[in-house]
Amino acid sequence: MKEHLYLKIANTLAEQIKNELLKTGDKLPSLRTICSEHGISMNTATQAYLELESKGLIISRPQSGFYVSYKPSGLQVPTVSKPAEAHLNESVEKLIGKVFYSLNDTSVTRLALGIPENELLPIAKLNKALVKATRTLAGSGTEYENVQGNLNLRRQIAQHSFSWNSKLTENEIVSTAGTMNALSFALMTTTQKGDTIAVESPVYFAILQLAKSLGLKVLELPTHPIYGIEIGALKKVLPKIKACLLVSNFNNPLGSCMPDEHKKEVVKLLSEKNIPLIEDDLYGDVYFGKSRPVPCKFYDEAGTVLWCGSVSKTLAPGYRVGWTAPGKFKDKIIHQKLIHSVSSTTVTQEAIAGFLENGRYENHLRNLRKHLHSNSLQFTRAIAEYFPEGTKISHPQGGFMLWVELDKKINTAELYDIAIKHKISIAPGRMFTLQNQFNNCMRLSYGQKWTWEIDNKLRLLGKLINQLL
Amino acid sequence: MKEHLYLKIANTLAEQIKNELLKTGDKLPSLRTICSEHGISMNTATQAYLELESKGLIISRPQSGFYVSYKPSGLQVPTVSKPAEAHLNESVEKLIGKVFYSLNDTSVTRLALGIPENELLPIAKLNKALVKATRTLAGSGTEYENVQGNLNLRRQIAQHSFSWNSKLTENEIVSTAGTMNALSFALMTTTQKGDTIAVESPVYFAILQLAKSLGLKVLELPTHPIYGIEIGALKKVLPKIKACLLVSNFNNPLGSCMPDEHKKEVVKLLSEKNIPLIEDDLYGDVYFGKSRPVPCKFYDEAGTVLWCGSVSKTLAPGYRVGWTAPGKFKDKIIHQKLIHSVSSTTVTQEAIAGFLENGRYENHLRNLRKHLHSNSLQFTRAIAEYFPEGTKISHPQGGFMLWVELDKKINTAELYDIAIKHKISIAPGRMFTLQNQFNNCMRLSYGQKWTWEIDNKLRLLGKLINQLL
Repeated sequence: MKEHLYLKIANTLAEQIKNELLKTGDKLPSLRTICSEHGISMNTATQAYLELESKGLIISRPQSGFYVSYKPSGLQVPTVSKPAEAHLNESVEKLIGKVFYSLNDTSVTRLALGIPENELLPIAKLNKALVKATRTLAGSGTEYENVQGNLNLRRQIAQHSFSWNSKLTENEIVSTAGTMNALSFALMTTTQKGDTIAVESPVYFAILQLAKSLGLKVLELPTHPIYGIEIGALKKVLPKIKACLLVSNFNNPLGSCMPDEHKKEVVKLLSEKNIPLIEDDLYGDVYFGKSRPVPCKFYDEAGTVLWCGSVSKTLAPGYRVGWTAPGKFKDKIIHQKLIHSVSSTTVTQEAIAGFLENGRYENHLRNLRKHLHSNSLQFTRAIAEYFPEGTKISHPQGGFMLWVELDKKINTAELYDIAIKHKISIAPGRMFTLQNQFNNCMRLSYGQKWTWEIDNKLRLLGKLINQLL
Repeated sequence: MKEHLYLKIANTLAEQIKNELLKTGDKLPSLRTICSEHGISMNTATQAYLELESKGLIISRPQSGFYVSYKPSGLQVPTVSKPAEAHLNESVEKLIGKVFYSLNDTSVTRLALGIPENELLPIAKLNKALVKATRTLAGSGTEYENVQGNLNLRRQIAQHSFSWNSKLTENEIVSTAGTMNALSFALMTTTQKGDTIAVESPVYFAILQLAKSLGLKVLELPTHPIYGIEIGALKKVLPKIKACLLVSNFNNPLGSCMPDEHKKEVVKLLSEKNIPLIEDDLYGDVYFGKSRPVPCKFYDEAGTVLWCGSVSKTLAPGYRVGWTAPGKFKDKIIHQKLIHSVSSTTVTQEAIAGFLENGRYENHLRNLRKHLHSNSLQFTRAIAEYFPEGTKISHPQGGFMLWVELDKKINTAELYDIAIKHKISIAPGRMFTLQNQFNNCMRLSYGQKWTWEIDNKLRLLGKLINQLL
């Protein structure tokens, strides 16, 4: 009987997964292979896989296939943060500096690095696009660019944003030297020294540094590892804040992604009070699910959302090509860009515009997502295997980062010092908050190609943690 | 007799110059030609030219030859400014915006443009350097660069600064996305909202905009068209200011160049009070005399001078390659750069480093200086010929800019509106001050190759000015 057949196959595979003969992150045989191996129809094979998917044992990736996604017991989701008001103190600044500068040492397995490895980037094609740009541009790109940014680039960004049903046009977009540069202009435009802004918690440390440098106070909002900020907490602080800055999709470091309903609600709450929402959507294109999550910008009717992005995490960190669609703040953002940097680097902007044409970017992204998703599953499997029982871990549905919560006894700043001696760098949790919290947490990046070397280093890291218990 | 012979030749040439058979900016026959034409010795020919030079009728340019530099009567040096405290008002911001955006219209003769024309740039060689950079760099320049900036570039900048006997090393230099970006980081590092800074008057309008955006108050110091700021005026404001920002060499727009003794004195005065001097030395390499003027940085012993420069006015505006040697503020400047822009564009920095190697830059600068000097003389001649009597004009010994003072009855903001209809853009004097002054002044750039088209436009501009009288 067909029914028995598909269940039998599904049960066999489920056994293999639970016994870790098939490990989390492993690719399953294709449906076609299953058909020929078991002599069954495509329909039966599909039913078997759907059965495994419904049990949460495997997941499908469009145009790629099926992967084991079994979460072994003991890997819970990290705790929701409960932050209060605080300041970026010097010891944390030192910790950030120490971790940051260690990234220059390529002999280290840099689990603290938040960018994809060169092997994952289309470098040859970018070189071609760069040479083409010198041929296309007036003065081969030696001329100052239009302050708002390269028109081709802005057009390509607008077109690419169709992937989340955006109606943005090139006129609404301003190019910048990467996302941090966009956030800097956005904060300088919407806030003044002494103002308070609301952010996620944990939050990307550079956002804390930027806010400090601009003399801004920061309120960290309790943030769920899967759903993002608690909307009730945001509501409470509305009277206090002048702007809100959120990494809405696959937040760094937590990996959280706000559900659509939350995004809609947040935009509504903020726009009613005329509070600008600076949205860092740097990771939105690196989704592991079926389609790109929409950014908050999708729900922006009042023009109060400043949507920011770049190709720094997907194509070329060193090209410094980013952008913002700043709604009603457009003219002010252009002015900030003009007075702080005159214009963007002409030639790299044109090169990225050229690369984005003809669906080339989407092809590249498909591969990148596949790799990163597979990496995230491999990391999860290895951590489950090597780290102490009770370790909690985020379930990112996109991006580059895992957030790991260890036993309360572990101080990850100390763990950093021990691990770096073994040529492993981690990002201690304390870097991602103004509060005295997350001392037992760390961020691990899976942006490098999965190798046995990394597996070994994760095993070693697990051993080092066990020794601290 | 030899003496009579050289005087006779000198007098003949002097007559031709005064009768404008030889016009200001024209190149004189070479010494060799004079020898063969008049059948005289090289010694006699040299004496004749020295005689003319001593009378201020011609000037010599190293490795280029002799040029007519006769200043017809009626062309006086512009007046020294006497500014008070004031704010950048909206109508001036609008004027700046209007002039700035007109620069995108290439059908206009852009006498308001402050950069060299493409024809004066070594574009083919830069393209080669760019391609080479993609071959040399790890990841072809897709990787983030070291935050302090490309090491090769910093080394080349340090070496190039030997031209003013600098002892700077690569470790003391931080690269930036152009000079304005360096000034922005320098001001953000040394001042806080509400602080007062001292600048020249007239002053480059973007400096006024930058100061306003950072919430700084600006004191304009009386500035001599040839010698720069009045040191007595600086002394008086020392107790009020938190930083001083000077364009020490060939100031934009005035063309003034502080004498060495003034530079030394200013550095002494400021460093005694521990007041940082932000030095914009953007034009220092574009000198018309025999050697490069030293910057104030040369006299900096306390590490309080933040020397800023770039290749934006000499090689590639659109590459966004600049730098600062910020003395004791180095770590803070690097931090500012990190949080506002992460790093510079990797590939254009490496390309400029490559171009700077092997004396290529010095060769290019020699040609550029020759062209610009000749242009400045042609402009001066044309203005003497076409503009009303009583017109005053600066005598820049370097840079790209002429400062022209017209009759008090002329409002150059109105002249702008009239001239732009005739496809000529000028930069009205009011753009360069917070005060209600310089309304009868304008800045004209001679960064474009001299053509009869430009001569005609200057004639037309003279006619328009006459009509306003």
